[in-house]
Amino acid sequence: MNIDLIRAAATRLAGHARRTPLLSSPFLDDLAGRQVLVKPECLQHTGAFKFRGAWSAISALDPEVRQNGVLAYSSGNHAQAVAWAASRHGISATIVMPSDAPALKIANTRALGADVVLYDRATESREDIGEALADDRGLTLVRPFDDPLVIAGQGTTGLEIAQDAGDAPGDVLVPCGGGGLTSGIALALAADAPHLRVRPVEPQGFDDVTRSLQSGQVQRNAQLTGSICDAIVTPAPGDLTFPILSRHCGPGIVVSEEDTLRAMAHAFTRLKVVIEPGGAVALAAALFHGDQVQGDRVVVVASGGNVDAAMFARALASL
Amino acid sequence: MNIDLIRAAATRLAGHARRTPLLSSPFLDDLAGRQVLVKPECLQHTGAFKFRGAWSAISALDPEVRQNGVLAYSSGNHAQAVAWAASRHGISATIVMPSDAPALKIANTRALGADVVLYDRATESREDIGEALADDRGLTLVRPFDDPLVIAGQGTTGLEIAQDAGDAPGDVLVPCGGGGLTSGIALALAADAPHLRVRPVEPQGFDDVTRSLQSGQVQRNAQLTGSICDAIVTPAPGDLTFPILSRHCGPGIVVSEEDTLRAMAHAFTRLKVVIEPGGAVALAAALFHGDQVQGDRVVVVASGGNVDAAMFARALASL
Repeated sequence: MNIDLIRAAATRLAGHARRTPLLSSPFLDDLAGRQVLVKPECLQHTGAFKFRGAWSAISALDPEVRQNGVLAYSSGNHAQAVAWAASRHGISATIVMPSDAPALKIANTRALGADVVLYDRATESREDIGEALADDRGLTLVRPFDDPLVIAGQGTTGLEIAQDAGDAPGDVLVPCGGGGLTSGIALALAADAPHLRVRPVEPQGFDDVTRSLQSGQVQRNAQLTGSICDAIVTPAPGDLTFPILSRHCGPGIVVSEEDTLRAMAHAFTRLKVVIEPGGAVALAAALFHGDQVQGDRVVVVASGGNVDAAMFARALASL
Repeated sequence: MNIDLIRAAATRLAGHARRTPLLSSPFLDDLAGRQVLVKPECLQHTGAFKFRGAWSAISALDPEVRQNGVLAYSSGNHAQAVAWAASRHGISATIVMPSDAPALKIANTRALGADVVLYDRATESREDIGEALADDRGLTLVRPFDDPLVIAGQGTTGLEIAQDAGDAPGDVLVPCGGGGLTSGIALALAADAPHLRVRPVEPQGFDDVTRSLQSGQVQRNAQLTGSICDAIVTPAPGDLTFPILSRHCGPGIVVSEEDTLRAMAHAFTRLKVVIEPGGAVALAAALFHGDQVQGDRVVVVASGGNVDAAMFARALASL
């Protein structure tokens, strides 16, 4: 992994991924006690930064290989991103999803042009199904985070932050699951804006990255369900992402569900953007854990907006 | 009014107003039966396009005059826009608001640095109070729409649409109150993108512009209260705006409250932006009145996002 891979991804993404602005509000600045600049990747295609990595990986494939199609395991934002990036490339996407995934997510992924293959979580292995499909059809697997091309795509977010955030030193807070977005941004900023320091942010109880950075060794989450921040709950930091996080990031920050819901409500009221719980943890850290943050200005990535109406109503009721 | 005034406003706004992107979703395209490009002015400073006009007017004042401060009558988006644009210029803003305006709107306007002067709607005239204040303090009135500099500021939205929307002919749907935004965009497109035609969109029962365009003469609304689209309810098109609308716009489109609420919900689900009812009428027209729209591609302005949680929850429940 190096900065050239990210710059090359930026070239491939130009005109295809959405160039998101930095948003701000004097009300959020007052609440946080410093200037807050929000990078709304919820406005990215399919509602999350994941489109960058999916586009980066698919656009880099040899055309002969690409035309056979791609494969992903996901019931979430990565699935929709791969489906839409494949569709825009005119190739097929096969998405392996558990049969108990929400019907709306299955329908949305199909509507984006994907061939959804369902499996029974209790009796089948998605890897076995995926490998068989990949062998049969010559599909290329697009991993959700532990892949250099995917990390490079997510890193383009960091190049844009470096261009837009100004010269003042400060922290860049990033919602962190497997670490693809966080490590990509960290690499980009190390090259283009070394005065900015990346801080991974996680929900309480699912703080594998924070603990891994503390201990210097990969730590795992004790559980993988039960968080409203489902988009950023993964077993552990990745083999590729963890060394990058270790080298370039400051300490992790851990936020509560209550603070996350309140951050979503503030984003609604002050920024007019819809953020999902997993995408709002960094804003929660900026607004409610400012004592752990450095600099007169903090950059916050709002990584996704795929939240249903019931959960959003719960967030609005939290203020 | 001419295009040079709009180009000059764009120069003054550069680096101060937010350059909003065009958003889209394949799901909205499917629903509308054509490509839908949404200009989210809800992401503008203070949550509405009004900041453009306020900044345009204040930035054009002679510095000697400007330092005395500005004045506006408004309890809505214009008030917050003038307050914040004045604050960013380091001058005072006096906002005359009815004493029965929602407490939150008064608090927000004060928080943006304005001096709020309350009056009793039943017994006092805001114009009398405003004139007295203006005389006493040498304040300059910033009108909400019927002013060339304000129209020029709103017209910068049209310059950006002309740059971003491509060469295909089609309609540009704009939520229309007094007509400042609609006429400004119409002038900008007439100069820079004559293949695009502006269509004012209004709520049922408050369709003064649509009827005025039909009859060729200024028509008034029978009532000024009772609409969820309060941000775009005005008595009649303006003396300056109506001739521009007449010359450059296609027929108006009228939408129901139900369609407006559903459009807000679709913007939440598919675009991850928060639109207020008055800002969502154009999207409602694109999604639910496509038979009245021309072209394979329609541009929609989402003019503001200042909606409270209760109204937003009502919109989400409409799908």
